[in-house]
Amino acid sequence: MNDKSTEISQLGEFGLIERLTKDFPLVNPSSKKGVGDDAAVLSFGDKEVLVTTDLLLEGIHFDLRYVPLKHLGYKAAIVNFSDIYAMNGTPRQITVSLGVSSRFTVEHIEELYSGIRLACELYGVDLVGGDTSASVTGLVISVTCIGEAAKEDIVYRSGAKPTDIICVSGDLGAAYMGLQLLERENAVAAQSDSKVPFEPDFTGKEYILERQLKPEARRDVIKELRERGLHPTSMMDVSDGLSSELLHICKASNVGCRVYEDRIPIDYQTAVMAEELNMNLVTAAMNGGEDYELLFTLPLADNEKIEKVPGVKMIGYITEPSLGAAMVTRDGGEMEIRAQGWNAFKK
Amino acid sequence: MNDKSTEISQLGEFGLIERLTKDFPLVNPSSKKGVGDDAAVLSFGDKEVLVTTDLLLEGIHFDLRYVPLKHLGYKAAIVNFSDIYAMNGTPRQITVSLGVSSRFTVEHIEELYSGIRLACELYGVDLVGGDTSASVTGLVISVTCIGEAAKEDIVYRSGAKPTDIICVSGDLGAAYMGLQLLERENAVAAQSDSKVPFEPDFTGKEYILERQLKPEARRDVIKELRERGLHPTSMMDVSDGLSSELLHICKASNVGCRVYEDRIPIDYQTAVMAEELNMNLVTAAMNGGEDYELLFTLPLADNEKIEKVPGVKMIGYITEPSLGAAMVTRDGGEMEIRAQGWNAFKK
Repeated sequence: MNDKSTEISQLGEFGLIERLTKDFPLVNPSSKKGVGDDAAVLSFGDKEVLVTTDLLLEGIHFDLRYVPLKHLGYKAAIVNFSDIYAMNGTPRQITVSLGVSSRFTVEHIEELYSGIRLACELYGVDLVGGDTSASVTGLVISVTCIGEAAKEDIVYRSGAKPTDIICVSGDLGAAYMGLQLLERENAVAAQSDSKVPFEPDFTGKEYILERQLKPEARRDVIKELRERGLHPTSMMDVSDGLSSELLHICKASNVGCRVYEDRIPIDYQTAVMAEELNMNLVTAAMNGGEDYELLFTLPLADNEKIEKVPGVKMIGYITEPSLGAAMVTRDGGEMEIRAQGWNAFKK
Repeated sequence: MNDKSTEISQLGEFGLIERLTKDFPLVNPSSKKGVGDDAAVLSFGDKEVLVTTDLLLEGIHFDLRYVPLKHLGYKAAIVNFSDIYAMNGTPRQITVSLGVSSRFTVEHIEELYSGIRLACELYGVDLVGGDTSASVTGLVISVTCIGEAAKEDIVYRSGAKPTDIICVSGDLGAAYMGLQLLERENAVAAQSDSKVPFEPDFTGKEYILERQLKPEARRDVIKELRERGLHPTSMMDVSDGLSSELLHICKASNVGCRVYEDRIPIDYQTAVMAEELNMNLVTAAMNGGEDYELLFTLPLADNEKIEKVPGVKMIGYITEPSLGAAMVTRDGGEMEIRAQGWNAFKK
């Protein structure tokens, strides 16, 4: 972080907003008016407008002892973009509201914004508004993302039909394992009483760390599907864990599902880390969350087409609702899928 | 509050959201899809989309010792509607994100939502999304409002021209005085060691309390202006105080202004309370904030038309930028207007 420190009170709210937002040029023709008025003005013509929002709270969603502020900003934006892609839309604008306690300086907040800006640049999204204020304790980040899509392109959770195949992009459980690693190293560092600063060795674990600290939204998968003329019958992003998301699709579509344990995509580093920590690998992949991969269903007839898409795996199929949601284990048995997804209210 | 208590952890996040949002039917044809997918889907045809967002933090923006949760929910929605009206638009949808610490029960959150629902019903706005999670300390409320307006109707802060007249709706300083009253009574109650519960007497102070606890957005003024064919050259709502807002308009429009001290609209109860607390009345009216009145400018030629609009007062005029922003005092002197508006970062 920067050596120079400015008390936020020196700038005041408007000064801070001006300073934070001056480096965000508007790039989309649909962004008519960004920061600096009572509301942002967006123009979409015949397109549908998509809106999603996420609230990130220090001590609940992130721990600044091992998450750099720039990464936090990047991730706060990405998770919202991911929600828009999961509707088969394109993110266009975001608003960012911050609550900032007195231990943060302007430079800290600029670090955070530099990550938001990087995400906006890479994904072609405009920052169009927000609200910044003090907080009594900790950092509060609220992001709202607005996207667009042609009406006929939008994919809901509710369109899955029996016999549809279930697909997922990328691999699962890596972000969760990255978090376990960071928490372990942080605990070790806290216990170390050596005068030599503790230097964790993350060699061979770069992938799971990156999945936790710098996730990406699967714009590439959306593009690929579109180019191949594949239109999912249902879709959502995997933020709370595959189990939880499968149940959402089953409930919204009034269907059941079968997914095969041996088809759940898992990276080598994820498996090594689970082994090291003596954790059940499939449980981590099914329930870990924060993968930001796309889970979607396609008509059975698209079977051959989807097999040719790199980085997408068919993991099962949709059934009649009476059959419930289950995982077919390696030994051929069936295990009911339950939402063990992350519950922020659990004690 | 309700006697029945449910731990939020019993419901989990999705259970809580389902419970909180089930009583919000969608009323606008433009609300294609509300809560229950990755993003809300809105359809506006040829209209412009307006988006505004506000973050409210316990201990900073509100004090639950004297603000009932239902009122807090109502106000959290209203302040966002006010921002959309201030663009000459119509609020259509909101998203509400909450961070809730363990001292809150489901019934508490339902109280809060009952206020949000009331505001939505009265103003014809749909709740279309949000995010709910635990917080380490206190209550966090983030509201985003989406509105619509025909392109030619939108009023920015930047359109004021020299010789334009400056108008404000309603009266100013009352919400600030209501807050002073609540804080005083709360301090008295805290010091009281009597066994008899302290019962504050608010007789004759109902108006200033209502202005603080249950503000309204000035939809009526927007309607009145439209019906009379009056199109403001600039407009914003008074949330941080008249001084601060006048400076925003002057800066955005590159103009100066003169407002007359003896024309600032102030209610009788506001004046009585300022007297009781030995505070400067004009300072309170100029800098108190939370009025949610509309401040706007009109061409000089609309002078006679606006005089006939009930509840709107002409308080001054726009000048060349070189003349700066000043208040003309009762004795004919000039006092530079400075932003003494509420600064959440001030210690």
